[in-house]
Amino acid sequence: MTHRPTIDTVAVIGTGVIGRSWALLFARAGCAAVLHDRDPAQASRARAWVADSLVDEVESGSLTSADAAASLGRVSIAGSLGSAVKRAGYVQESAPEYLEIKRELYAALDEQAAPETILGSSTSTFDMSRISAGLAGAHRCVVAHPVNPPHQLPAVEVLGGGATDPAVVTRTAAFMASIGQVPVVLDRFVPGFVLNRLQFALVREAIHLVESGVASVEAVDAVVRDGLGLRWALMGPFGVADTNADGGIRQYYTGHEQLVMDLMNDLGPTPSIDARLIEQLGEGVDAMTAMASRAEMRRWRDRMIRKLRALKAGDPAPLTTPEHAPSFTERA
Amino acid sequence: MTHRPTIDTVAVIGTGVIGRSWALLFARAGCAAVLHDRDPAQASRARAWVADSLVDEVESGSLTSADAAASLGRVSIAGSLGSAVKRAGYVQESAPEYLEIKRELYAALDEQAAPETILGSSTSTFDMSRISAGLAGAHRCVVAHPVNPPHQLPAVEVLGGGATDPAVVTRTAAFMASIGQVPVVLDRFVPGFVLNRLQFALVREAIHLVESGVASVEAVDAVVRDGLGLRWALMGPFGVADTNADGGIRQYYTGHEQLVMDLMNDLGPTPSIDARLIEQLGEGVDAMTAMASRAEMRRWRDRMIRKLRALKAGDPAPLTTPEHAPSFTERA
Repeated sequence: MTHRPTIDTVAVIGTGVIGRSWALLFARAGCAAVLHDRDPAQASRARAWVADSLVDEVESGSLTSADAAASLGRVSIAGSLGSAVKRAGYVQESAPEYLEIKRELYAALDEQAAPETILGSSTSTFDMSRISAGLAGAHRCVVAHPVNPPHQLPAVEVLGGGATDPAVVTRTAAFMASIGQVPVVLDRFVPGFVLNRLQFALVREAIHLVESGVASVEAVDAVVRDGLGLRWALMGPFGVADTNADGGIRQYYTGHEQLVMDLMNDLGPTPSIDARLIEQLGEGVDAMTAMASRAEMRRWRDRMIRKLRALKAGDPAPLTTPEHAPSFTERA
Repeated sequence: MTHRPTIDTVAVIGTGVIGRSWALLFARAGCAAVLHDRDPAQASRARAWVADSLVDEVESGSLTSADAAASLGRVSIAGSLGSAVKRAGYVQESAPEYLEIKRELYAALDEQAAPETILGSSTSTFDMSRISAGLAGAHRCVVAHPVNPPHQLPAVEVLGGGATDPAVVTRTAAFMASIGQVPVVLDRFVPGFVLNRLQFALVREAIHLVESGVASVEAVDAVVRDGLGLRWALMGPFGVADTNADGGIRQYYTGHEQLVMDLMNDLGPTPSIDARLIEQLGEGVDAMTAMASRAEMRRWRDRMIRKLRALKAGDPAPLTTPEHAPSFTERA
């Protein structure tokens, strides 16, 4: 984290799995992170989780003890929404995913936060136009949707609603970049945004292949983790196509248009996700993960993602750096 | 490469982009690799490419000079198909992707190779039942479809035709594992196998998002390389789902069945891949890659994949090792 945060104090509103991860990220990057949750016990558990996670990072060698202690020192808990947002330049809302809860919360935030404070939402579902409809401060409301967990995975989808000031989108993206995230500014709302649409496009076919008897859960996962995923950790689908042919992406597709369209048209339909299918997938995963505990798998995942990001930071792509890329500020 | 190859001598028939990469892989793993191509100049170019690539691996620190020299020493060129396969325990066919070419070649291979020699094909398209139809040795014919390039990416899809002896599938998978690949045995043929179906499921939606104005080529790629791809380099879609909820994949889907199906049903249709779309994607990639040369990007990709695989080999997943996993032999 070589950059200085462009905003000093952040309020984390809602401290479940996503909120607590944001708290760790903000604090580690140098921000004061003020937590608030309607359930005070949840906020306390979130702070304890941040402490435990910082210890994991020290133990795996990605953080010094001094930095971990300083990070934890920047995490505080506020008893009321008003005191949480009082000094915040940015609010990250991570309340449960129900429109009415978000709308009520945004009304309160808009009333209590200082006029310049940006009100960002972790929503994975809603158009900001609907969350902020009718608010005096709709211009300062923006979606900042992370990949779970944000303290490990840098991509953040940034998108305003119809009333959002474009400068708020730019400032949000700049803030995310300054704390080491990779802001991805979307041009318009679509259900699932980009991330979950891409994810569930792959998942839909993965389920179809298992359900139709082509391959086991383990075989499908192996094709991704020991094949496609090794490229996708470095390049997206367009970058992959461009490096797959000597003449780049134009040559890659030219002459194969019909072949590609035929394959796409042969992909499976949406499966019926029901108890029977879920149990089939569950048994497939049980067979794959064998004796490993889920907690052990998660610790391994988090440790490996940290190492993988360090690898990329140490040898960035020749195009620009994949992380901290200046492209969004140039576009803005 | 800590394992000993289960087969000593391999014939590489067809030495284009895929064949030459197999040649490097086999030789580096300790096999004698005998190259043959209908065009002798192509075989010479392939051997020169192997030499250059070995130098790259030495320069990036993943191979010693002595190992590189020994590897190159194991690569030879045979002037005829008969002399190429004479001593081979395994043949890897990588001829152009036309059914008639493959069928003729398989007829010649079946006639000239020793009776026990396995005849493996790199085909990404054809059912082995069609390639080997009518051959006396159809029982020893098998698909071994790599990810491009196989000397960097370990996953190999292994699948017999209707007449293939199951023991040939098992021996092929065991051989691939012994040279450091990750064999993925499929249960039945389907167009595109597993790998390209998963890949083009994601690509279809990626193109749809760009074409419908939701996000730029660069934004879509960033969501993958700085988000989804960092997880997929470690776990497939089922492993990801299992670690995304405290109660595993069953809990992840239960209660969200309709939400997931709605999102899947909202995914875009197959785009019309035509000159206009290809140019739009090309311009998006041009903007993303800016001043970097494609050759530079490929060298970076290859170097990073080697480092990433070394990272995974050094800290394997607690379930089993993601590479050299014993699961397929246990299943077999």
